[in-house]
Amino acid sequence: MEQNLIYIVPALGIIGLIVMAIKSAWVSKQDAGDKNMQELAGYIADGAMAFLKAEWKVLSIFVVFAAALLAYSGTIHEINGKEVHGSWIIAIAFIIGAVFSATAGYIGMKVATKANVRTTQAAKTSLKQALKVSFTGGTVMGLGVAGLAVLGLGGLFIVFLKIFNVVDVDSNEMKTAIEVLTGFSLGAESIALFARVGGGIYTKAADVGADLVGKVEAGIPEDDVRNPATIADNVGDNVGDVAGMGADLFGSYVATILATMVLGQEIKVTDAFGGMSPILLPMVICGLGILFSIVGTWFVTIKDDKSNVQTALNLGNWASMLITVVASYFIVMYMLPDGIISLRGIEFTKMGVFGAILVGTVVGAIMSIVTEYYTAMGKPPVNSIIQQSSTGHATNIIGGLAVGMKSTVIPILTLAGGIMGSYYCAGLYGVAIAAAGMMATTAMQLAIDAFGPIADNAGGIAEMSQLPPEVRERTDNLDAVGNTTAATGKGFAIASAALTSLALFAAFVGIAGIDAIDIYKAPVLAGLFVGGMIPFIFSALCIQAVGKAAMDMVQEVRRQFREIPGIMEYKAKPEYEKCVAISTKASIREMMMPGAIALITPVLVGFIFGPEVLGGLLAGVTVSGVLMGIFQSNAGGAWDNAKKSFEKGVMINGEMFYKKSEPHKASVTGDTVGDPFKDTSGPSMNILIKLMSIVSLVIAPYIAVNGGGSEKDMMGKCHNQTECCEGHGKNMDKKDCCKNDSTCEDQDGCCGGVACVCPEGTKCPSKDCKEACCTGKEQCDMKDGKKECCKDKDGK
Amino acid sequence: MEQNLIYIVPALGIIGLIVMAIKSAWVSKQDAGDKNMQELAGYIADGAMAFLKAEWKVLSIFVVFAAALLAYSGTIHEINGKEVHGSWIIAIAFIIGAVFSATAGYIGMKVATKANVRTTQAAKTSLKQALKVSFTGGTVMGLGVAGLAVLGLGGLFIVFLKIFNVVDVDSNEMKTAIEVLTGFSLGAESIALFARVGGGIYTKAADVGADLVGKVEAGIPEDDVRNPATIADNVGDNVGDVAGMGADLFGSYVATILATMVLGQEIKVTDAFGGMSPILLPMVICGLGILFSIVGTWFVTIKDDKSNVQTALNLGNWASMLITVVASYFIVMYMLPDGIISLRGIEFTKMGVFGAILVGTVVGAIMSIVTEYYTAMGKPPVNSIIQQSSTGHATNIIGGLAVGMKSTVIPILTLAGGIMGSYYCAGLYGVAIAAAGMMATTAMQLAIDAFGPIADNAGGIAEMSQLPPEVRERTDNLDAVGNTTAATGKGFAIASAALTSLALFAAFVGIAGIDAIDIYKAPVLAGLFVGGMIPFIFSALCIQAVGKAAMDMVQEVRRQFREIPGIMEYKAKPEYEKCVAISTKASIREMMMPGAIALITPVLVGFIFGPEVLGGLLAGVTVSGVLMGIFQSNAGGAWDNAKKSFEKGVMINGEMFYKKSEPHKASVTGDTVGDPFKDTSGPSMNILIKLMSIVSLVIAPYIAVNGGGSEKDMMGKCHNQTECCEGHGKNMDKKDCCKNDSTCEDQDGCCGGVACVCPEGTKCPSKDCKEACCTGKEQCDMKDGKKECCKDKDGK
Repeated sequence: MEQNLIYIVPALGIIGLIVMAIKSAWVSKQDAGDKNMQELAGYIADGAMAFLKAEWKVLSIFVVFAAALLAYSGTIHEINGKEVHGSWIIAIAFIIGAVFSATAGYIGMKVATKANVRTTQAAKTSLKQALKVSFTGGTVMGLGVAGLAVLGLGGLFIVFLKIFNVVDVDSNEMKTAIEVLTGFSLGAESIALFARVGGGIYTKAADVGADLVGKVEAGIPEDDVRNPATIADNVGDNVGDVAGMGADLFGSYVATILATMVLGQEIKVTDAFGGMSPILLPMVICGLGILFSIVGTWFVTIKDDKSNVQTALNLGNWASMLITVVASYFIVMYMLPDGIISLRGIEFTKMGVFGAILVGTVVGAIMSIVTEYYTAMGKPPVNSIIQQSSTGHATNIIGGLAVGMKSTVIPILTLAGGIMGSYYCAGLYGVAIAAAGMMATTAMQLAIDAFGPIADNAGGIAEMSQLPPEVRERTDNLDAVGNTTAATGKGFAIASAALTSLALFAAFVGIAGIDAIDIYKAPVLAGLFVGGMIPFIFSALCIQAVGKAAMDMVQEVRRQFREIPGIMEYKAKPEYEKCVAISTKASIREMMMPGAIALITPVLVGFIFGPEVLGGLLAGVTVSGVLMGIFQSNAGGAWDNAKKSFEKGVMINGEMFYKKSEPHKASVTGDTVGDPFKDTSGPSMNILIKLMSIVSLVIAPYIAVNGGGSEKDMMGKCHNQTECCEGHGKNMDKKDCCKNDSTCEDQDGCCGGVACVCPEGTKCPSKDCKEACCTGKEQCDMKDGKKECCKDKDGK
Repeated sequence: MEQNLIYIVPALGIIGLIVMAIKSAWVSKQDAGDKNMQELAGYIADGAMAFLKAEWKVLSIFVVFAAALLAYSGTIHEINGKEVHGSWIIAIAFIIGAVFSATAGYIGMKVATKANVRTTQAAKTSLKQALKVSFTGGTVMGLGVAGLAVLGLGGLFIVFLKIFNVVDVDSNEMKTAIEVLTGFSLGAESIALFARVGGGIYTKAADVGADLVGKVEAGIPEDDVRNPATIADNVGDNVGDVAGMGADLFGSYVATILATMVLGQEIKVTDAFGGMSPILLPMVICGLGILFSIVGTWFVTIKDDKSNVQTALNLGNWASMLITVVASYFIVMYMLPDGIISLRGIEFTKMGVFGAILVGTVVGAIMSIVTEYYTAMGKPPVNSIIQQSSTGHATNIIGGLAVGMKSTVIPILTLAGGIMGSYYCAGLYGVAIAAAGMMATTAMQLAIDAFGPIADNAGGIAEMSQLPPEVRERTDNLDAVGNTTAATGKGFAIASAALTSLALFAAFVGIAGIDAIDIYKAPVLAGLFVGGMIPFIFSALCIQAVGKAAMDMVQEVRRQFREIPGIMEYKAKPEYEKCVAISTKASIREMMMPGAIALITPVLVGFIFGPEVLGGLLAGVTVSGVLMGIFQSNAGGAWDNAKKSFEKGVMINGEMFYKKSEPHKASVTGDTVGDPFKDTSGPSMNILIKLMSIVSLVIAPYIAVNGGGSEKDMMGKCHNQTECCEGHGKNMDKKDCCKNDSTCEDQDGCCGGVACVCPEGTKCPSKDCKEACCTGKEQCDMKDGKKECCKDKDGK
């Protein structure tokens, strides 16, 4: 058993994929409705595939180029005389990661574009059946993502152990194996970036463009079949909310497990698994999480049309989380050894590791609950925006911005508490395993998440096919729940991204060979500032991209209305594919620049300024990115639901207001501002912070202080004692220079590890002045933090 | 000369105040216009004084309470057995700082409310005369602030040197003297917080309230005498833009000089000033900066109505900056000694100190220029917002938000470059002196800044008094320039706040007795996250406060229109004072909560989690605060000028649009959203980051690692070796524990300053395993960063 545990991991992934295939087949077997519905669904499916293909074409160039670069870097075995443990195989891992990520998106998209029309058809019979179809569609997505991730990581790990002939956990071969595995995560996260950003631009360009001309200029309802952009709009739901979200969580899932493995490799334990238990633990927990997520899906069912769909989803979610936590206890107790476990000087027990997992789960739950509170209809935050809509567009905007900013407080305190709590439980390994514990039920989270856009699409098809009102009512019911789950899903995604980044951050520090990231040092602080700024420029680029692409869409829709006679009378079909092409082209064009920033900045900063400044940059990006992500996602969600509230009517100062009233118009402004906030720039923050961390982790061996790179950093500081002793006369932090057993002979020099003043001509043969010059009768004195050596006992 | 240099500093402050008095008298002598104008100006002056009095009433309670707390803290001379160098006199310094800050605000407000109506009157004759009156008003404000700051700091420093009997620069008495002086800065910055936040809420509540009912509901123009809120609106310009900005820069000015002095005290030099040259240098430069600012004002004059006012102001600004830089060279060369100067292990020369001053000046200049670019009419950023106004309110908002976010890039890169550059030149002292160099021309900066609201008020009075159009044209000319100078002034203020905070940050680290702020440690990282969040909640509170207060104002104006017959026909006077009272009350009520956050958070975090976590918090606040400040100020400024552009007409897609067009309405929405952004929450960020830093500096001695507080922090880490040796079995970073000459006797313990493994039973009598257990024939081996001791030469 113990020896074969490693094989269980990919097996769990395969089980997940088998269940996925069964569920997918079930969805395909459902009735896809009449010819008209099938035709519309066909347009959506074709549009989605067209986007994926176009995206893949561009990305394949990027993947080949990046893989070549990685392969080259793997051939470097020595930098400035220091050994580097790389291998060209990292390029293979990278490509596999990219392909798996793309496949996960493909699976999700494929099933979503099948499940949408089948949900519409099922809604003709009952809500129960419609929920079953749409949620099963979501489950396929969830299991696909989690299954591929666990299979990929677990399988590659086994393969790499063989390839590199790893016999000892502490060996350099083991280090190489895990470093090569980071390539898998880098591949996954790179694809995720473009899927999330490109998808986000796509969906909002189509949405805003369709609304501006359709609803505002032509006066036709949303999802009207006459609007040339309506198919693009529905494609966008799949591209952004299904494929984008899937790739995002696939990346988080992989990166979290990997970061925990990197830290686990540093832990030395004697266990039944050849010392590998800290490395295997995150994989086992996440693998079993797939099974528990499947169990959780059994709870998601309702009795009849009057049942509460949200309750059913919550039940499934809580069930899978609870089972995972309980099971984690037994897994941790079984796998980890008794007694003290130690990582980088912090000591903890296996009970502490379980405690950290518990902390991670609680953090995830609180983040979801808070997100729901700030964005749900009927709750004070959304109501405050509704009230402020009564005095116009401006006050609606101010209200939404204030809600978004305020909504950062509890999540950040939760996150800070989670960091401290999990660190208290099990050091940095605790922070990483907390993230893994939270991510264990990703399959379930994604199932709930992907259900939303499927229901949204189903409603769109019902509207476009002009089906009877009770069908639309049922899909609207699902859609409303889907909006809430989308919001909580975003909370989960940002929390997971934050914890993942922290885990990666910890792993980075280890591999980069630094033992601190000291923001008291000016260059590190400068890095922190620049890092903090990146989410701002990234957001600005995303927001602007949506604006530009939406304008292109508006022009095209106007053209079609003008040049194709009979559209308005249902006599001529609009050229849907032209609008799809515009959204596709624009999103792929506009995702380049933000993508380049995320990929290139850490490389530049790392190689020019060294690992510690890069650490400062990462911290800045993470803090600012998490804040901007929460702020934008929640502001956007709150604006959206404030607008939606007008559909049933809202009471402002004792008066009822409905759609088309002045306050409603103000709320539409808020919703439009919120669209790129919540679906483009906000969620992109997740990927931004994760990708920059993973890029840093991959380049870490090459910029490592003890492993190569310039010995002297940009600020003229040196990191080894030879140079220190030679040139510490100018602009050098002596404390930094005195790291090793340096034996400078000048008066005010480095005596071993301590900067100190010695009597003229005295050598400092050891770490301490005391030892250095007080070996005989002399005494040592502390003066202003420096040790001064004195000639005799009286201190003269 | 050398011995008396210290007396020159307050003398320079007094010279500044004398010139101020002369200029103030000149303004008072100018013609204040007809009875109607004087009556209106009287209302404004009374309203402004009413606010100041109400504010002072509340603040005096706070000042007394805080002073008592400080006095008590000064009586503590020992914490946990460690000595603390405090004195109850810090309470006196605090009160004087508060009074000086309030006085600076009072002077500015008084002269501004005199200069406004006199500018209107002067505008009847010529633009040249109007500029002279308004700019002289601004100069009075600038000289008042700078003069009081230099007099206060310089005078108190001399007094404290005497009180504490300082004979030696390196003595504890000197430390106490400078620590007590931080009370002056704390007092100034506390008042600044309430002046800035309260003033910001006041001015925008009145502005938004007046506009919503006056312009929108009643259809009367801005500044119409019939609008009950119009006086409050004009009062707001003085309260927010004059008194608030003045208090802000007074605080920055004092804090910067002080932080440089704290760092200067640590530098040991042999000079002609008893080793005090690094302490005196910032005071001398800033004192002389007052003279150079006076010289600069001579350049601010125009020939006739066709001359460019902006050019005249720029000329004055550049002149005073240039003279200051040149003079700094000679001052530095004269005061500082030749050879190597060293601070905390970084070595530099006096040429490096001058280099840092140069860097600071360049940073300030770039920040101003960039701010102008992003907010000025006719430049691409504002034009892009205008273009996006054509598709409605939402796209205008999106455009403004994107411009604001993008505008952070160059300032942050500049700041990062400035930090690195000044650090490279002269270490942390360089960072601080760079800020001081930038702040040296504060008098000139404030003169240009305060000129804006005076011109704005002058225009308001011209409108209210229904003066002929050529008068309004001249005041409009001045007002337009004033808008630009307001924007550049904000850029200067945020840059100064950022550099000031960094200088305070460096000073804090020194006094707190820590030698690093390592964000790699989980609690410090948590502190960074929480710190980053504070500007978000602070902004949200400010924005909401404006919304709430504006609503109160709207109710009152509506009531007056309803209940006082004849207002609209100019037959009855509105009750201006009621609106003034509402704005006053609301601003004072709403400034409490944000003020409390800024004051209490660092105290709580510092005492509970220790200085290093507090350092993380400060870094988070500073980075996030600077970003949010730049983002909000520039977005607001750009929206404002996008709206203003419609007055002369703008071209969108080949079509001209003017006021009252649909795009103009969209631009008004942006302007209203931008109002609290640019005048309330944005500028408040400056004070937030400075105040939290100064509070931390004041409490630093009491939370210092070596000076008291809990030896064990929240995470169970200990900071002295006794506890380390006792309890390092659990959750303790051993590296941290092994700070001193600990001699743990267990096998896996602290051997002096290094965590290492020793053979069972072996003592570790020194800092190093090598010394510890390899004294005889044994050898030492490195294993995983720990030294292991081996029994014999072969390493067995």
